[in-house]
Amino acid sequence: MKHENALKRLKNIEGHIRGIERMIEEGAYCIDVIRQIQAVEAAIKKVSTMILDEHINFCLIKAVRGEDIGERERVLKEIIEVFDTANKT
Amino acid sequence: MKHENALKRLKNIEGHIRGIERMIEEGAYCIDVIRQIQAVEAAIKKVSTMILDEHINFCLIKAVRGEDIGERERVLKEIIEVFDTANKT
Amino acid sequence: MKHENALKRLKNIEGHIRGIERMIEEGAYCIDVIRQIQAVEAAIKKVSTMILDEHINFCLIKAVRGEDIGERERVLKEIIEVFDTANKT
Amino acid sequence: MKHENALKRLKNIEGHIRGIERMIEEGAYCIDVIRQIQAVEAAIKKVSTMILDEHINFCLIKAVRGEDIGERERVLKEIIEVFDTANKT
Repeated sequence: MKHENALKRLKNIEGHIRGIERMIEEGAYCIDVIRQIQAVEAAIKKVSTMILDEHINFCLIKAVRGEDIGERERVLKEIIEVFDTANKT
Repeated sequence: MKHENALKRLKNIEGHIRGIERMIEEGAYCIDVIRQIQAVEAAIKKVSTMILDEHINFCLIKAVRGEDIGERERVLKEIIEVFDTANKT
Repeated sequence: MKHENALKRLKNIEGHIRGIERMIEEGAYCIDVIRQIQAVEAAIKKVSTMILDEHINFCLIKAVRGEDIGERERVLKEIIEVFDTANKT
Repeated sequence: MKHENALKRLKNIEGHIRGIERMIEEGAYCIDVIRQIQAVEAAIKKVSTMILDEHINFCLIKAVRGEDIGERERVLKEIIEVFDTANKT
């Protein structure tokens, strides 16, 4: 399956988030909660980078090499939007 | 309970991530997956900001007003570490 | 001239930086200095976004529409590198 | 003088920006201009981090250890504002 590694990481992140929910329910110290959330943020960013890299190295390169001008423009605009969003998050 | 709103949001994020896992399992287009992950990133950042704001406005202000010099230094170092990590993520 | 507006902004930023140098020489309060540096950071980011947008809307679109496969790949790799650097700064 | 190293770096950055202005005047390739601007962005961020670290390790620690509650709150709010701005830039 495509993105198998990313899928595994998302399942871990899901478990990590459940752990943070428990911390909050048990009244953990704010800073400890925030540190765990920051770890989740870094983990999700990693997954997003992995999928983006795969997209660039396969789908995007293939489309840019292809004959279809409309498709080439489409994938370009798409990736620029993704980068713009990433820059703002 | 403290951070009740944050807890609710984390449960939503958990569901969102499960949705992304299904997208990957069903072979969704990379860019659609990435957009969902970016939405999760923004949602988690929001939760982390909420908890941080509460920490600053309650625990931190209280400690800084308090008599205990060691405690004042401790909370200051703690918050600077959190901000440093946030700046790098 | 191309990037005329960006050029004007860079000249302003140059003057802004000279002002910050004077602040430091005159022993200004750190936080006031930092606030001015943060204003410069935002101003430079704005210039970089302006030039990048122009590049995307003219050079990049033109290359992606063009016949030269090698050139199409080259401009794509180039823009991805720029975005990667932006994401890390 | 305080922040002597930061001052030297700001003077270099000023020269760097003048170089970028010349590149634009001479019609340099957008991507080459952007790369130089990104280098300036990183250099300015470095200066800002240097001054911030000095502020934290001297002024801020001193104020937080001090007797003046109002002053302690003031420096705390100030630093949080600076970090908030940094997080958004």
